[in-house]
Amino acid sequence: MSKFITLLTDFGVKDGYPGIMKGVIWGIAPDVQIADLTHSVSPQNILEGALTLARAVPYFPPGTVHIAVVDPGVGTERRPIAARIEDSFFVGPDNGLFTPLLEKAEKTGEDIQIIHLDRAGFWLADVSAVFHGRDIFAPVGAWLANNTPLGSMGTPINDAIRIEIPAVRAIPGGFRGTVLHIDHFGNLSTNISRGVLPEDTGSMRVRYGEIEIPGLASAFGDDQPGSLVALIDSGGFLSVCTVNGNAAERLNARVGDIVEVWF
Amino acid sequence: MSKFITLLTDFGVKDGYPGIMKGVIWGIAPDVQIADLTHSVSPQNILEGALTLARAVPYFPPGTVHIAVVDPGVGTERRPIAARIEDSFFVGPDNGLFTPLLEKAEKTGEDIQIIHLDRAGFWLADVSAVFHGRDIFAPVGAWLANNTPLGSMGTPINDAIRIEIPAVRAIPGGFRGTVLHIDHFGNLSTNISRGVLPEDTGSMRVRYGEIEIPGLASAFGDDQPGSLVALIDSGGFLSVCTVNGNAAERLNARVGDIVEVWF
Amino acid sequence: MSKFITLLTDFGVKDGYPGIMKGVIWGIAPDVQIADLTHSVSPQNILEGALTLARAVPYFPPGTVHIAVVDPGVGTERRPIAARIEDSFFVGPDNGLFTPLLEKAEKTGEDIQIIHLDRAGFWLADVSAVFHGRDIFAPVGAWLANNTPLGSMGTPINDAIRIEIPAVRAIPGGFRGTVLHIDHFGNLSTNISRGVLPEDTGSMRVRYGEIEIPGLASAFGDDQPGSLVALIDSGGFLSVCTVNGNAAERLNARVGDIVEVWF
Repeated sequence: MSKFITLLTDFGVKDGYPGIMKGVIWGIAPDVQIADLTHSVSPQNILEGALTLARAVPYFPPGTVHIAVVDPGVGTERRPIAARIEDSFFVGPDNGLFTPLLEKAEKTGEDIQIIHLDRAGFWLADVSAVFHGRDIFAPVGAWLANNTPLGSMGTPINDAIRIEIPAVRAIPGGFRGTVLHIDHFGNLSTNISRGVLPEDTGSMRVRYGEIEIPGLASAFGDDQPGSLVALIDSGGFLSVCTVNGNAAERLNARVGDIVEVWF
Repeated sequence: MSKFITLLTDFGVKDGYPGIMKGVIWGIAPDVQIADLTHSVSPQNILEGALTLARAVPYFPPGTVHIAVVDPGVGTERRPIAARIEDSFFVGPDNGLFTPLLEKAEKTGEDIQIIHLDRAGFWLADVSAVFHGRDIFAPVGAWLANNTPLGSMGTPINDAIRIEIPAVRAIPGGFRGTVLHIDHFGNLSTNISRGVLPEDTGSMRVRYGEIEIPGLASAFGDDQPGSLVALIDSGGFLSVCTVNGNAAERLNARVGDIVEVWF
Repeated sequence: MSKFITLLTDFGVKDGYPGIMKGVIWGIAPDVQIADLTHSVSPQNILEGALTLARAVPYFPPGTVHIAVVDPGVGTERRPIAARIEDSFFVGPDNGLFTPLLEKAEKTGEDIQIIHLDRAGFWLADVSAVFHGRDIFAPVGAWLANNTPLGSMGTPINDAIRIEIPAVRAIPGGFRGTVLHIDHFGNLSTNISRGVLPEDTGSMRVRYGEIEIPGLASAFGDDQPGSLVALIDSGGFLSVCTVNGNAAERLNARVGDIVEVWF
């Protein structure tokens, strides 16, 4: 039996909305344990939510149900959906939140099943136009944790909305990528994966704007505090960091900024 | 057996105080699951805490114990109390935090039992003058989750402190209400409930300061991003929102601001 | 069986890192309940993390596993360690995070066992150079919760790194201490413990900079809102507070500021 549910939203923590979702879940699936992934996705930022979810999913046990709600279209014609990718479950709005997970699964040939949640019997009795996290997604996630078959809660679809994930481009002598994520420490994580870099990174240079960083550090602590380094982050991507400092503040960096790497 | 406890405080999350309450709870009731409602109530803001709690309670399973600590009077003569309303339990300071729940229960004739927590045997051995959340409310909540009878932990009272919840007033052709809550997205939620509005809201106008909003939107996404709309929020109250934006910032709004509605 | 794990980090909550640690833990120890102590330790501030952890530990049940990750040296030669103090367990980097707990245990003669985590079989298969919270400390904590013997996961050491905890000094007629912690409410908690103060505090004066506070209040609510008071905080230490206000903002105070007390 599936025992774990995660929540990822842009609801913030001050109003009690994530707690309300837990109450709904436990009313249906009282033994499930619930982990908050984050409730601090920037409001309505689907790409940020999608990337944060994709980073976390591989570390949860098989059968985990991930409920993700970044939902500018709540209450409109946008569909509520649920999906199974191999042995993990996903519930949320049909707006592209699951794009990175679906793309990865398609690449590796994992089994995918997606449904349009169109059976109100699995929802709360009263469905508001503004809080489907509480009224639709939390109950459906709880029913999934209770082993309710995915297919019984909706109609199969194969046209789930995708968003565009910025891609890396080859340039003469290297690659041009973009900053996809700036974390709490101010580290700039890019879309340039370790896999595209040469084995020997001794002659590698990383450029961010006017700044050039030679080589690849193996850990934060290998350089002087305050120095700017490039290293491979915990997701396996090239990132630009300040040792014991905040690179984003120092560089006034934003998601979408260009980072280039040459060999 | 009751299996769920919620925590609502103004403690913030940086100092570990809510975590400490969980340790105390699990020491007494090791199988209970605990949900944070919020720890970001504005310091000492009893009304904000009371409204946030009241929004969440209906979504938790019967038997849930809600511990709420917004407690400017901690360590003074203010009484620690616990209550049962129908089949939910409440623990906290006697300062009005439970007013909306008690008023609603009285209106609908639900069963209410309130006690003054005056039996120190159910508390931690050492009670500080500044952290009754840890020393009194967490242990009492845990004993309630363990099915300890409410009446055994204190003396019945019927004079629990109430706070004033701002009321809606009828004005010629409509109603005058106030903003009770501004959420993480900057939506302005009022005390004007859906129930007082006419069935047909086609000719309705909402006024906030100099601004007039025609009609009632059915969802955020039904209007252009950036436009100001009135809609019914997830608690069933009229709210003023900016589509994909922050109405509170745009209007420089505050809790207590006047909102009027005409038909 | 140990059933509880706590997490204390400087990871923040927006990126999902603490949630990822929960996924790893539940993959190994599916029945464990997990409490967040805090993820808002100031980045790389080992002393702040150490003091926050030490405040919380006494309130958790025997057998609890505390995972603490404030880790500027991640990926360098600094050792990952785990410890047992009496019947609580600790996992984290060897950089002094556990100093106050070890010092207290040594003073009271509690049983201490510390190991260098050097057996990779208890870690995730891929260990990054930047996220040992996920790759080493979460799995080791989960194995401890599963009753895996501490000694089986590494090599005993007795030279764990300590940090200096600022000490109180006797001065003519009193004591000179420092602000060790400023909490969410802006209360200034010092290292001057209740135990060094005289029984009768009637003639006591507390000095912070130019300001002198007479006597010791017994609770926040005993003085006028806005007035500055000295009282004993929930950890048993002298603290300087503003009634219903924020002393840190009012005094522009910082951790490390001097506080003196005379009798």
